[in-house]
Amino acid sequence: MPEETLRPFTFDIIRAENVILNTYDNHIKRSLSAMRNQYHDEKAYEALLNQQDYMLYEVYEVKRPEIAGELLQGISIVHPGKVGDEFFMTKGHFHSELDTAEVYYCLQGEGLMVMETPEGEWAVEKLIPEKVLYVPPRWAHRSVNTSRNEDLVTFFVYPGNAGHDYGSIEKQGFRKLVVEREGEVQVIDNPRWLPPEAR
Amino acid sequence: MPEETLRPFTFDIIRAENVILNTYDNHIKRSLSAMRNQYHDEKAYEALLNQQDYMLYEVYEVKRPEIAGELLQGISIVHPGKVGDEFFMTKGHFHSELDTAEVYYCLQGEGLMVMETPEGEWAVEKLIPEKVLYVPPRWAHRSVNTSRNEDLVTFFVYPGNAGHDYGSIEKQGFRKLVVEREGEVQVIDNPRWLPPEAR
Repeated sequence: MPEETLRPFTFDIIRAENVILNTYDNHIKRSLSAMRNQYHDEKAYEALLNQQDYMLYEVYEVKRPEIAGELLQGISIVHPGKVGDEFFMTKGHFHSELDTAEVYYCLQGEGLMVMETPEGEWAVEKLIPEKVLYVPPRWAHRSVNTSRNEDLVTFFVYPGNAGHDYGSIEKQGFRKLVVEREGEVQVIDNPRWLPPEAR
Repeated sequence: MPEETLRPFTFDIIRAENVILNTYDNHIKRSLSAMRNQYHDEKAYEALLNQQDYMLYEVYEVKRPEIAGELLQGISIVHPGKVGDEFFMTKGHFHSELDTAEVYYCLQGEGLMVMETPEGEWAVEKLIPEKVLYVPPRWAHRSVNTSRNEDLVTFFVYPGNAGHDYGSIEKQGFRKLVVEREGEVQVIDNPRWLPPEAR
């Protein structure tokens, strides 16, 4: 949608085997090489990257002006897979405008949203189809695909002025990691994480 | 959800025969008696109201503080039916904070969103399952169920500070009406409507 478009517009979420949008403005692809230092098992990361620069996730965005009052929306697709024992996930971010929320509506697959506040409070919520998740203002968020073979697909809406702050998460990651151990999905402490007062 | 809740939360959209939420804070019901002067055929309105105060639509709201940065969400259910030749519809409103948008995701049924700006520009967009509609800032909006026997169900998200301004629509209605004539859904001019400069 061009930014000059002020008239109402629609798009379709096509819920076929692969959920897609029939129209979008921006297609973001993040592969393994864009996620250096984000996975706890660095050896496994390098080994996997040597095999192939796997596609981890994709975002289809519908553009609007990035100002308060507008809403930005699109779909996020996290592919299935693991780096060592850690599931494929998005980079995760705070909103630059910290006091802005986000709504996620899960359309397909199975996963977890890992969240935390600047003070180090954390939360993990399950994503399955038809579940709506409210990420309140101030909560960083990362989606993790815990399925063995299916994409995790969510429809998201957030305020136009939210912005993305990846930096603070890139430094030390989230407080919690999502791994598969003994055949089970486990939420474990991130050994690299430090509480705010120790950073 | 209590307003003190600052942690992330989820709810489920249950897409059974009747779409419902498994949790919500507010259930708004609007029956025929709440829509006096909104339908163009006043005789048909009085006759129908004498039969029964039919339920026209319901909204299930998930509450959050009504401030910028928060997002308000829920589902809207417009039941099927007509007042004379005019389809059941919501009251319709501008946002009090005019420069705020709204996202509608259609989950079930078939209908039209009727929209207009304070300057009298108008738009009508079709709602069918999996269609997402972006109502840009400044556009008043009303959903109309054009199905013969099915509920029109939409999931909506809008900025916490948007507010509702029903007054200006109540006075003269929308510029366009949605009626059934000769077995077809038609969008016609509202004879009561006046352009801004003539009000």
